[in-house]
Amino acid sequence: MNLEQFAPYAASRVTDFMHGYIDSLDDAAPKLKESMKYALLLGGKRARPLLVYATGKLLGQTEDVLDYAAAAVECVHSYSLIHDDMPEMDNDKLRRGHPTVHVKFGQAGALLAGDALQALAFQFLSDQNSGLSDSSVARLTNILAVNAGYSGMCGGQALDLEAEKKHLGLNELKVLHSKKTGALIRAAVLMGAYACEQVSTEICSNLDEYAKWTGLAFQVWDDVLDVIGDTAVMGKTAGADIALEKSTYPALLGIDKAQAFAKECAQKAKNALKTIDGDTSVLSSFADFTVSRDH
Amino acid sequence: MNLEQFAPYAASRVTDFMHGYIDSLDDAAPKLKESMKYALLLGGKRARPLLVYATGKLLGQTEDVLDYAAAAVECVHSYSLIHDDMPEMDNDKLRRGHPTVHVKFGQAGALLAGDALQALAFQFLSDQNSGLSDSSVARLTNILAVNAGYSGMCGGQALDLEAEKKHLGLNELKVLHSKKTGALIRAAVLMGAYACEQVSTEICSNLDEYAKWTGLAFQVWDDVLDVIGDTAVMGKTAGADIALEKSTYPALLGIDKAQAFAKECAQKAKNALKTIDGDTSVLSSFADFTVSRDH
Repeated sequence: MNLEQFAPYAASRVTDFMHGYIDSLDDAAPKLKESMKYALLLGGKRARPLLVYATGKLLGQTEDVLDYAAAAVECVHSYSLIHDDMPEMDNDKLRRGHPTVHVKFGQAGALLAGDALQALAFQFLSDQNSGLSDSSVARLTNILAVNAGYSGMCGGQALDLEAEKKHLGLNELKVLHSKKTGALIRAAVLMGAYACEQVSTEICSNLDEYAKWTGLAFQVWDDVLDVIGDTAVMGKTAGADIALEKSTYPALLGIDKAQAFAKECAQKAKNALKTIDGDTSVLSSFADFTVSRDH
Repeated sequence: MNLEQFAPYAASRVTDFMHGYIDSLDDAAPKLKESMKYALLLGGKRARPLLVYATGKLLGQTEDVLDYAAAAVECVHSYSLIHDDMPEMDNDKLRRGHPTVHVKFGQAGALLAGDALQALAFQFLSDQNSGLSDSSVARLTNILAVNAGYSGMCGGQALDLEAEKKHLGLNELKVLHSKKTGALIRAAVLMGAYACEQVSTEICSNLDEYAKWTGLAFQVWDDVLDVIGDTAVMGKTAGADIALEKSTYPALLGIDKAQAFAKECAQKAKNALKTIDGDTSVLSSFADFTVSRDH
């Protein structure tokens, strides 16, 4: 399967898996359940689950096992979107053309849906039916917790809050994004890798290199799209970052150099795959996709 | 050590452990780090860590290993307090006589501190230096995730939100509290138990019974204190639940019967310990403490 076939397949697979799992939970709090499912639908592209599946399959793990890791990383991504959209953060009313969770379920409901989705992520990883070995569960839990928390995504979000209305240099911006966006992309790739028992340190290190550059490419291109993108295609307000006077790659480098830098990152990501045996075409195409997408 | 000696020992042990661990994280986001540490200080009694230590030690595990499980459950408790205090939830300005996290660090800061503490909980459990076996890590992660999330604490919080200004019956109130408060108390006891490799199903089942009744006693007594307590001693506004027209045990049973019911629950908790070999005096005294404390 090439990326064009695999992406919708992986997205629909993980969505069905997450929804089925949530449906199977007790019915004590139906509104919370509904808000969690709604939030997961707003998540969108399922880029992180795709990376889990693609990496895990490359190294020989089955999709049935990878479902749990894919769902876990998507739950963390999804909870972060809910909380980021809230009035005390970005105060976004729309995501992918739909009302954000706090608009639809109220602020308290959104706060709780996010909290419950983060817990659900770790429930997925530790589910006794996952087929993951205990050592993989321990490893994946650690990868996700570290990359979701202070040293990863939450830390990046804190830096982002402090950076508003402040001028960041290129290196500060890289650190911010390596945490805010990059950490979860790295987590996705590493979780796919460590879901396999026999993976070598060398392969993991190359995959981590791939993930770092892909994550950076992804974020730089997001900044580029924020300048050149179209609100209707993107489902959020183009130019929002500029309106907030945030530091961005186009603001620091100019739009042409920012585009070129994103493509250079994607190339470095692909280079990191070269020494890995097996069909790396999906991961390679994904790196290209990050810097060619229009939303 | 009896409970009076063990409680302050356990509290100071887990606090030092958590603070030391957080201090050892990178310094990229100092404000977030500060808010996480501040939030942990507001947590207070460290009842859940105490239960982890007491249960784990009873079954032969070392305190050095139990630190990680104790810290994990306290992080979840602490994040839930931060988010519960926020304006969209209970809008509390004081906790134990100190400004709540959102008052001190702003709403966005409080949201993030809570999110990061939840992730940190799972980082503690999966830390490769914990000394926990992989199978214990997998089990403890599952116990904490399930009891913190939709089926536990978050579900209880959702029920609580929906219950405001609505009259609940006694059974509905029990379900609400078994999730909102009880789930994390059960998690603490079970995490202490499963931190030990060789624990039998029968002992775990008795300890779970102990935890269920202790949790219920704890919550009923909280409701009682809300009526008879003193604001200065409790560090929060006495009568707050009544002001919110919440369903409580004293409202449903009358204050005398509510007190008697709490004591009956504590007795059932102690009965569940009877078949367990070893020194259960700390757990037993803790059950008594839940229904004799004045804050």
